[in-house]
Amino acid sequence: MNKQSELFLFGNETEVEDLGGGLKRQMLGYNEELMAVKVFFDKGAEGYTHKHRHSQVTFVVEGEFHFSIDGEMKVLKAGDSCLIPPYAEHGAVCPTGGILIDTFSPPREDFLKE
Amino acid sequence: MNKQSELFLFGNETEVEDLGGGLKRQMLGYNEELMAVKVFFDKGAEGYTHKHRHSQVTFVVEGEFHFSIDGEMKVLKAGDSCLIPPYAEHGAVCPTGGILIDTFSPPREDFLKE
Repeated sequence: MNKQSELFLFGNETEVEDLGGGLKRQMLGYNEELMAVKVFFDKGAEGYTHKHRHSQVTFVVEGEFHFSIDGEMKVLKAGDSCLIPPYAEHGAVCPTGGILIDTFSPPREDFLKE
Repeated sequence: MNKQSELFLFGNETEVEDLGGGLKRQMLGYNEELMAVKVFFDKGAEGYTHKHRHSQVTFVVEGEFHFSIDGEMKVLKAGDSCLIPPYAEHGAVCPTGGILIDTFSPPREDFLKE
């Protein structure tokens, strides 16, 4: 991976990657320690339950999300957030459509193209 | 410091700390690798130029910010973001009032009480 992103990233100039299933992702910045991305959910889209080694903090920008972390389910709305510890099983369904900011350490190298 | 925050944090239940100078900060989540906070700027408030060992990615939720990183100045608006590498001098002025999401790795232990 490149060691880091540009220092300044403009939302209207940065690629929005279509992930399928009503999900899209845009890079907000990264280096070898940290990464933040913006994730767009269409109405009813789901981030399927998964886990990874990376620590994650997620902030809800818009919409309502039914979040599950290690089997505990909560409804998160704009202004709410959550911590996903390493290897915690987590997933989210977004009945309203919405936007998340997902932050990771270490960075998700799997989100970077060559 | 505590090893990590709660898993779920609700914006209307989480303390908003008044930092003075028209700045306020709210914790969004952290563990030993990662931290995210929300920072509220009153109109004209300034985050004075400083630097730190932590990697930082910042996302603009609302408002217009005049951001400086290592002497390079850019205007960032809602949806824009920036990477602040370790020890890069950085600061921001917010002529409009606005809100940032600041993310750090390692976590800013100085933001935790006790």
